[in-house]
Parts: sequence; C-alpha cells; structure tokens
Amino acid sequence: MKMLHFSIDDIQRFSKLYRLNLINSITGYKSANLIGTKSNSGDENLAIFSSITHLGSNPALLHFTLRPNKVPRDTYKNIKENKVFTVNHVSLAQIDQAHHTSAKYEEKISEFDQTLLEPEYKLDWYAPFVKSSPIALGCRYLNEYEIKENDCLLVIAAIEHIFIEDKLLQKDGWVKLELGKVVAINGLDGYALPQLQKRLDYARPKQIRKKI
Amino acid sequence: MKMLHFSIDDIQRFSKLYRLNLINSITGYKSANLIGTKSNSGDENLAIFSSITHLGSNPALLHFTLRPNKVPRDTYKNIKENKVFTVNHVSLAQIDQAHHTSAKYEEKISEFDQTLLEPEYKLDWYAPFVKSSPIALGCRYLNEYEIKENDCLLVIAAIEHIFIEDKLLQKDGWVKLELGKVVAINGLDGYALPQLQKRLDYARPKQIRKKI
Repeated sequence: MKMLHFSIDDIQRFSKLYRLNLINSITGYKSANLIGTKSNSGDENLAIFSSITHLGSNPALLHFTLRPNKVPRDTYKNIKENKVFTVNHVSLAQIDQAHHTSAKYEEKISEFDQTLLEPEYKLDWYAPFVKSSPIALGCRYLNEYEIKENDCLLVIAAIEHIFIEDKLLQKDGWVKLELGKVVAINGLDGYALPQLQKRLDYARPKQIRKKI
Repeated sequence: MKMLHFSIDDIQRFSKLYRLNLINSITGYKSANLIGTKSNSGDENLAIFSSITHLGSNPALLHFTLRPNKVPRDTYKNIKENKVFTVNHVSLAQIDQAHHTSAKYEEKISEFDQTLLEPEYKLDWYAPFVKSSPIALGCRYLNEYEIKENDCLLVIAAIEHIFIEDKLLQKDGWVKLELGKVVAINGLDGYALPQLQKRLDYARPKQIRKKI
C-alpha cells in the first residue's frame, strides 16, 4: 500500500476547490439528509445536508452545522422563526433531485417547485416532509453553539416524531437502512449506496485476542 | 410504502436498548473511525467512533462528541494531556477488530494488544496511527464545547497531517473512499460497505425543472 502524505502547510497551499474536495471527503462517509422548513410567511424550503449526526438517545437528540453568516441561509432563518424542521433521508432514486436542492435559489422559490421532490404534511407539524423518503423526522430546535474556530453554528435539536417505512424497523429497534436504499455522501458530490456486511455483538473484553 | 409513526412519548416509553438501537440508526449512515491516543505516561489507546464529522476545509477542521463524565474515557484524558490524536478509517477487513475496541478495557491495557490492529508511528506524531488503514489523519485538539442538552462534549480539532493510500486520491482532490473499502456504520453495531453510484456536478438553479 503506497501512502501519500500531506502536512497542514500542503493543505493550505492547495487550490480552494482541491482543498474543498479533499477535506470534505477525508473524514469518511456522511449521512445524506434533506432538511425541510417553512417560513412564517409560508415559504417552503428544502436543502441537502451531510452533517446531521446522532447526539444522544435519551433524550433523542441530533445536531448539524451551518454557516449562517456567509450567505443567506433560508433553512436557518426558517428554523429560528418557528423552531421546527424535518429531516428526510435520501434514497437511491432521489439522489439527483436531492443534490439539486444545493443550488442557490432565492428565498421565495421553493426547492419543492424546482425538483420532483414533493412536500407532505403530517400530523400538525408546520414544516414539510419529503414524500417517499423512507425515514423522516420531525425535529424541534433546542439550542445553538457558535463554533468560534470557523464561525459555524452547531444546531441541537430534539427528535419529536419518527416516520419510518415498516420493513426497515427490526425487532430490537435497529433500523436496517439498506432496506430503504438510503444513501451516504462521499465528499461534496459523491453518492454511495451502502450494503450491510454484518452486525456485531456488544463487545466485551477478551473475546478477541491477539496474543494467546 | 407503509409508514410507522412514533411520537416523542413513544420514544420515551421504549426500553433503553430498543431506544439506543432506534435513535442511533435513525439519522442515517455514520463514518467509521478509530481514534488513536497515547497518555503522557506512554499508554496507548484505540477506540472506535461514529461521530467524527467534517467541520470546515479552510482551516481544515473536524469535530466529534463524547461523554467524559459518565464513564472513564481514556481517549479524552489522553487528548487533554498532550492535545494530539489520530483518526484512522476502518476498512472492510478491519471491521471485527475495530468493533472490539469498544469493549471496556482498563486504562493500562492497550486495544492494540487485544486486537490484530497494529500501531504505527509516523513522523514525530506522539499518538499512534493504525497500520493498514487506507486513510489516517494526525489531528490536534483546539477546543471543546459543553453541550448542556445532554452533557456531551463536542471536540474541535485541526487536521494537521493526512496520510492516504495513493489510489484513493483523485485528480481534483476528491477521495474515492470506495477504493479503500472504507466502511460506514449503521446504528451501534452494523457495518456497511458503500458503493459509489455517481458524482454530480455543482448544482445551479434551473438545471432541473419540475414544471416547464
């Protein structure tokens, strides 16, 4: 295995695009989620995110990051207005449409009108869900932390509703994402379909030994 | 598509294990990384994490979460002592060994001695890398944020060194993770191998239209 090495100085000297591609893909696969929001004046918004991460299960929390100060961010503005949003998983058939939500549309233009993705309202949740996503979450904004190292915001949210295609949910609560053809993101623009290899037992000391 | 619905009250009523499985898998695929550290007294530690996420590319930053106050956390203690750690991607052949690092060993016991994973020292970096990982990062602790919603810590770190198998790195800086058989994590214990479906162009308004 021939390895290449880059130092922090090398990384600084790369062109902006080269560095964006490299650093966005160097931490591994990321989740592929569409965040749905609606402004208080009724404008719907849908945007793809790759930074949504599980934070804790009791209470059920997730977090994601954004940069509200660099460019207009409809998602952030809408969440601040009414506190609710939806998280919708991207499945294989939705890749092109989901990626297109990253195009910079004006606030009054809904990504639902510019793509084949359709909004769906469930229960009394103010924010739109994405119809045909195999998993969709109704989330409530709780807090934000300003990451001073690069002026990002970390948003913390509670998972208040879970909608899941029944065949994905296994007997012990585990969600078999593969059965929903849920995709993962590689870098800024690569979409991959994971195949389950194995589920492993809870690890206890001394079950595996290197030296006997 | 038959959908199931769970409210926040349902989630609260699930058993602890059911809720752990459900909420850990409900946000989608996660990166699979081994964090390598070494205490100032020379004890090596290796632990699997699924919360490492890209934070920004200029400067090159990542973040991850941990709960230092619940149980002893060698990883956190070591990072606080000397500020450096390594992030090593888990490849297909390493799944069982990588998962086993989640077993609770005492501080003096190195996971490198309990698994087939081997430590490798590169340059003058104090923390051990994992030999044969297709991608390995030398990272420096910068800061931490206390997430008061569930007493987690968010650790912010700079990426100071990148080691990458040459065939993974593409001409534009993008890393084709598939070529390293890098895996993703589904929930607490599911390991999946992603296959690239497509890379898409930078999205611009009006390239895709729903209604013409």
